[in-house]
Amino acid sequence: MNALQQRIRKEAENLGQGILKVTRFLNHQVDPLLLDQCGRELASRFTTAAATKVLTAETGGIVPALMTALYLRVPLLYARKTKPITLPERVFQTTVASHTKKRCEDLFVSPEYLQPGDRVLLIDDFLAFGHTILSLASLVRMADATVVGVGVVIEKAFEEGRIACNSLGVPIEALATVLDMSGGEIVLA
Amino acid sequence: MNALQQRIRKEAENLGQGILKVTRFLNHQVDPLLLDQCGRELASRFTTAAATKVLTAETGGIVPALMTALYLRVPLLYARKTKPITLPERVFQTTVASHTKKRCEDLFVSPEYLQPGDRVLLIDDFLAFGHTILSLASLVRMADATVVGVGVVIEKAFEEGRIACNSLGVPIEALATVLDMSGGEIVLA
Repeated sequence: MNALQQRIRKEAENLGQGILKVTRFLNHQVDPLLLDQCGRELASRFTTAAATKVLTAETGGIVPALMTALYLRVPLLYARKTKPITLPERVFQTTVASHTKKRCEDLFVSPEYLQPGDRVLLIDDFLAFGHTILSLASLVRMADATVVGVGVVIEKAFEEGRIACNSLGVPIEALATVLDMSGGEIVLA
Repeated sequence: MNALQQRIRKEAENLGQGILKVTRFLNHQVDPLLLDQCGRELASRFTTAAATKVLTAETGGIVPALMTALYLRVPLLYARKTKPITLPERVFQTTVASHTKKRCEDLFVSPEYLQPGDRVLLIDDFLAFGHTILSLASLVRMADATVVGVGVVIEKAFEEGRIACNSLGVPIEALATVLDMSGGEIVLA
């Protein structure tokens, strides 16, 4: 994903403390053509996983997960952080620590859309410490469904989310990998 | 949009009090191919509007807004309901009443991505009372930018959001229109 790496080099900002600002093209303003490419690439890396569903968490994950689901031609399911009244009383629920909001958030998924037999590809914008991915995986387990892969747009390797997620025993794919931000720069792999 | 109307007839639920549950294909689980069609259709209805940006609010609006922006080949900008630390100190901010969460929510947009001269197409999943659209329009005004159109996937005509939004003086397009839900049915136009 050269296009993505170029955009990170050109437009991402290192805000310190591991915070990578990519609001210009990924998670506030979005470049749809770039994210279309990201979705196609993530889908191509998981063609053999036979996923029946893509699962992500609102909000930042929705865009890359939608584009991946579009190319895999499977439904997208996004976990909600608040429970709207359109969700049933009984839901799968877990919590996750948010890195950029400095607080814990709930994640809700309706059992209507996550079922035993589902083969679930987890997609998110970032792989940082792995908290969101592991929380999504716990929702999949509650449904007796199976995680078949993890795909992210940007991995911050220095926060070691890949190590945390290795316990899932599935392939983990990142379209761009940030090795280090400790010196004020953004060091890409 | 026959495909959309068929899905509403087959899979939407009338939960009473004007609440239309479409979590099976639109705003929890998403059918990417259907929403791809919705985005293409919304884009085609605004080709002459010369939009430079698509603006929506998280969460439900992101999917249709992304697909519309993809076909219009302009950036998508989604207003945040919480302010992550990646947003600058000074932001455009307003509030909106949430119909399905029974509370008021903030909306934040970074001035970095909404500027004088921008021609902004507002996209959302629903047009109900018009609260979200009018709040998004107020963010556009704060930026001295111009609203050039309003597009939604589903309009609930009986809640009269179209009348509320007529003050914007721009074309309003809905891909499906629900005329009445008062009898327990879902009456489509």
